[in-house]
Amino acid sequence: MRKVEICMSPEMIHLYDLKGKNVVVTDILRATSCMVSGLANGVKSIKPVMTLEECQSLRSKGYIGAAERNGAKVEGFEIGNSPYSYMEASVKGKSVAVTTTNGTVAIEKSKEAERVIIGAFLNLSAVVEYLKNLPEDLLIVCAGWKGRVNLEDTLYAGALAESLKDEFESDSDAVLMSRDLWLDAQNNLLEYVKQSSHVQRLKRLNIEKDIDFCLSKDVFDIVPLLDGEELKVLN
Amino acid sequence: MRKVEICMSPEMIHLYDLKGKNVVVTDILRATSCMVSGLANGVKSIKPVMTLEECQSLRSKGYIGAAERNGAKVEGFEIGNSPYSYMEASVKGKSVAVTTTNGTVAIEKSKEAERVIIGAFLNLSAVVEYLKNLPEDLLIVCAGWKGRVNLEDTLYAGALAESLKDEFESDSDAVLMSRDLWLDAQNNLLEYVKQSSHVQRLKRLNIEKDIDFCLSKDVFDIVPLLDGEELKVLN
Repeated sequence: MRKVEICMSPEMIHLYDLKGKNVVVTDILRATSCMVSGLANGVKSIKPVMTLEECQSLRSKGYIGAAERNGAKVEGFEIGNSPYSYMEASVKGKSVAVTTTNGTVAIEKSKEAERVIIGAFLNLSAVVEYLKNLPEDLLIVCAGWKGRVNLEDTLYAGALAESLKDEFESDSDAVLMSRDLWLDAQNNLLEYVKQSSHVQRLKRLNIEKDIDFCLSKDVFDIVPLLDGEELKVLN
Repeated sequence: MRKVEICMSPEMIHLYDLKGKNVVVTDILRATSCMVSGLANGVKSIKPVMTLEECQSLRSKGYIGAAERNGAKVEGFEIGNSPYSYMEASVKGKSVAVTTTNGTVAIEKSKEAERVIIGAFLNLSAVVEYLKNLPEDLLIVCAGWKGRVNLEDTLYAGALAESLKDEFESDSDAVLMSRDLWLDAQNNLLEYVKQSSHVQRLKRLNIEKDIDFCLSKDVFDIVPLLDGEELKVLN
């Protein structure tokens, strides 16, 4: 039987052997939710980069620049880290270069994997169905917050592991804990996640609409994959 | 109000500022449970060391040698990592030098703190009462398993944070998740923890008696502290 593991923070990713595995990277609030929303709405491709400088220099090559630090849009870039900004008409057909506090770091650290898959509640079932048909073991990588574990990514990881429990087994305590937290929270997800530290941070930035949207399940039926240096929808 | 945070694995400890804080280190199965058991039963002091070589060389200076790797006692040392071996008559009044897979690493990484306190279910209430009377913020450090998070240390951290909730506030998701896991598990702790990966590992080593004991609450009324290089009961 295939195996599933959960890495609750990118700070622990060196403890896992990524080679030959599929990795699902998740950053629910909001990087991977943005990526899924954009690619489902006509964005051509998304290039995750680590620094503001790289992101800026790609703008001169025709990319739309998306930059977030500490939850807020960085001045001088077209879009920040709201899924709604990734669905605007102005980005359709365009390539986006993106750098964020947590999500793009997690993607960068996952590149050794067989496949890097972008997961969010917004495309949960699409990712589940896709993984069921792949033979490799699975590692779910939570982006967390500046290296620390967070609630919403852990809950997504638990939801994904729970949805795959008939196909993927686990002897990992991180899977056990994440699944139990998800089973407790699933019928009350929005209220539960609103307790989280990151939601408190984002509230100060007035983006409750984003939070509600990022916690919606199965809005989009796509599976974004890293293809070379860019995220694309290949299915 | 004082603050409490939980570091779910020593791999993330560099993200926390330890200076001026009290740190409770926990390694329920079994290092800190052993330390509490020994010091409550007449062991004079316990010196945590990182390597088997250091542990061996302290034996020639009169220390009892306690060494565990991967759950098993290392050959050539007096005792391994069972709380029962720390309570034998032969160790009363003696100093013990100890090295283990996870617990002694977590202690070593916590040394910058104001105080390093040894916590286990066995002395839960004693640690709670002690912390209530100290003015510093608190960080609970879970030893985990070779850098990964584990169930039993997370549950202990949740139990400690829950017991202190009227005195210590938190905006940390790790605290929120650990407390919720504890609240779910507390009335069924033994059965719940028996699902964990580490218990499955230890089962193969035939030490279910140890596991039952390590999950017992408030057996001992002592608070071991790091004093220089050695753990002692100062209260």
